[in-house]
Amino acid sequence: MADSRFHVAGIGNAIVDVLVHADDALLARLEVSKGVMTLIDADQAERIYGLLPPAIECSGGSAANTMVGIAGLGGKAAYIGKVKDDQLGQVFGHDIRKGGVVFDTRAATDGPSTARCFVLVTPDAQRTMLTYLGACIELTPDDVDADIIANSEITYLEGYLYDPPLAKRAFLKAADAAHQAGRLVSLSLSDPFCVDRHRTAFLDLVANHVDILFANEAELCALYQAEAFDEAVRAVRGNAKVAAITRGIKGSVVITEDDVHVIAADTVAQVIDTTGAGDLYAAGFLTGFATGRDLATCAVLGGIAAGEIISHFGARPERSLADLVNEKVGPSPMHLS
Amino acid sequence: MADSRFHVAGIGNAIVDVLVHADDALLARLEVSKGVMTLIDADQAERIYGLLPPAIECSGGSAANTMVGIAGLGGKAAYIGKVKDDQLGQVFGHDIRKGGVVFDTRAATDGPSTARCFVLVTPDAQRTMLTYLGACIELTPDDVDADIIANSEITYLEGYLYDPPLAKRAFLKAADAAHQAGRLVSLSLSDPFCVDRHRTAFLDLVANHVDILFANEAELCALYQAEAFDEAVRAVRGNAKVAAITRGIKGSVVITEDDVHVIAADTVAQVIDTTGAGDLYAAGFLTGFATGRDLATCAVLGGIAAGEIISHFGARPERSLADLVNEKVGPSPMHLS
Repeated sequence: MADSRFHVAGIGNAIVDVLVHADDALLARLEVSKGVMTLIDADQAERIYGLLPPAIECSGGSAANTMVGIAGLGGKAAYIGKVKDDQLGQVFGHDIRKGGVVFDTRAATDGPSTARCFVLVTPDAQRTMLTYLGACIELTPDDVDADIIANSEITYLEGYLYDPPLAKRAFLKAADAAHQAGRLVSLSLSDPFCVDRHRTAFLDLVANHVDILFANEAELCALYQAEAFDEAVRAVRGNAKVAAITRGIKGSVVITEDDVHVIAADTVAQVIDTTGAGDLYAAGFLTGFATGRDLATCAVLGGIAAGEIISHFGARPERSLADLVNEKVGPSPMHLS
Repeated sequence: MADSRFHVAGIGNAIVDVLVHADDALLARLEVSKGVMTLIDADQAERIYGLLPPAIECSGGSAANTMVGIAGLGGKAAYIGKVKDDQLGQVFGHDIRKGGVVFDTRAATDGPSTARCFVLVTPDAQRTMLTYLGACIELTPDDVDADIIANSEITYLEGYLYDPPLAKRAFLKAADAAHQAGRLVSLSLSDPFCVDRHRTAFLDLVANHVDILFANEAELCALYQAEAFDEAVRAVRGNAKVAAITRGIKGSVVITEDDVHVIAADTVAQVIDTTGAGDLYAAGFLTGFATGRDLATCAVLGGIAAGEIISHFGARPERSLADLVNEKVGPSPMHLS
C-alpha cells in the first residue's frame, strides 16, 4: 500500500509559466495590476504574447508547485489537474512527475491548449501574472480520483480552481471525499482578485470546510474586507481552524483559536523573483503538518522552501529542499501515519 | 532600404533547448560524451526525456543564439531556420523576433515537430547536448532568401547544418549567394564530433569558401586531426583568412596569415552554464567585424558577450549586451557600410 498513500494530494490549474523580465512601463502598457493574477482569453493571450520580450518556459500552477515542493522535501504527493495532450502538456507532465509527484489525470485530447501563465517579473522581484486557463476549464469531478483523496492525509485546493466553473465542482467533490475519509482539507486563497471574485463561497469554505487555510496579508484582508491586518487576523481567528498567513519579508503568522505564532522569514541572499513564494511556503508547512511537526516548525519549513524559490527565476525548486531543511533544522522523519 | 540591410544573416538548426541540471552519473547512464553534441532520433528523444529531471525550456540553436546576441549588441541580424508550426515552434519564433532578429522562414505545416535539444548542465558548468533535429531536416535551399544574403555584410553558417542533408544544400546556396554579392562568409565548426562527421567537407570549406572561421580548441584540433593546439594553429594559419579560436578560461586567439592576437577571457564572477559560450563569442566578434573594428577589439567584444551568457542558465542573454559593451569598452557605432 505504501505507493498509494500520500501526505498531500493537490488539485489545481495545470499551467506552464512563460517567464519574462518586465518593467513598470510594460505593465502600464498591458494595463495590468502589479502583483496579482489577471485572467485572459485566447485572443488576449496571443496579443499579449506578441508584446512580451523573449521568455523562458517553466512548469507552474500554484498547487502543482506546492506538490513538487512537498516531494522535494521528501514527502509523498499526488496532483490532479488538466492539461491537453500537446507539447506544453507534455512539458507539464514531465516536470511534475520527475519532480516526484504522482500525476495521472487524463490529458484532454481536444478543446483548448494547455494553460499558460505569462509571469512578468519586475526588477523589484515582484511578479504579475496573466493566465490563459486553456485546458484547465476541462477539469471535472470525474477527474477527482476518490482513492487518492481518501489515501491522502491532507487534500490541498487552490482558490484559483473557482475560476473554471467545472473545476469548482471537482474542488467540492474532493473536499467532501476527504472529510468523508476522515482526512483534512486545506485551501489557499491564491490571489486577492480571486478572493474578490469568489468571496461568499470562500467565506463559507473557510468557516465550514477548511482545516488549514493559507493566505497572504492582502488575500486575508480581501476575504474579510478588512482595512488592516490586525482586523483580518481577529476575523480569521476561530473561523479557520488553522490559518497560516504569509507576510513577505516579515515572515508568517500561524493563527489558531488558542494561539498566534509569529515566525521570521528565512534569510535569503538575494530576492530574484517572488513567483511561487506562497506555493512553496504551503509545501513546507503542509509537509511539516502531515508528518506531525508543531505549528511553529511547520511555518519554519514553509519559510525555508519559500526562501529557496524566491532566490531564483521560476516557481519550481532548483536546489534539494530536503538538503536545505536538513542543513537548517536537521533531519525530518517522513513517516505516514 | 535600412530595414532590409543586415550586419549578419545566420543560418542554422532552429531548436528549443530543454535545460536540466545533471550529474556525471546521469551522463554515464545515458552513455553520452561530456561536452559534445550527440544526435538522437524521435524514439531516443522520448526515451531520454523520460530519464531527465524537471527542465526549463529556452529557445536555442547555435546560429540563432548568435543572431540574438548580435541584435542585443545593437547590430542588425536576420535568421533562416526551420521550425514546425507547433507550440515549441511558436516559442522559438517569438523569442528570436523579440530578441530583435528578422526571422521569416516559413514554418513546416507537417512532418516532424520543432527540434529540441536536451542540454545537460553539470556542476562544473559544462554542457552536454542531445539533439533531436525534428523539423530542421525540412530546411531546403528554397528557404534561403537570396535578398537577405545579398544585403548582409556577413553570412554566418553553423557546421551543425551539415547534419540534415537538405540543410547542407541550403548552406552551400547561401555561401555562394554571399560571395556572388561580394559579401563575406563565416563558419562555426560547432562541435568536435560534428567535425569528425564532416571533416573532408569542412576542410574544403575552410580552404576555399570561408572568410571568418570560428572554432574552439577541440574543434580546430579535430579539423586538422592535430594532437596539440600549436599544431592546429599552424595548420589553420593561411588556410582560413581569419580564424577566431576560443579557449575557454584562456580567452581566444585570432589568427590571420600575418598575425596572431591573443586575447584574455572576460572576467566572470561565477560560471554557471557554458551553453552558448561559443555562439555569443561569435556574436560579439561578428558585430565588431561588421562594424569595422580591429580584430583584437572584435575578440574583446566576443569575450564580453560570452562572459554574459556563461554567468547564467541558458544560451540567450539576460542582460543588455549593448549596455555591457558600453560599460566595458565604450560606445560602439553600429553603422552599416
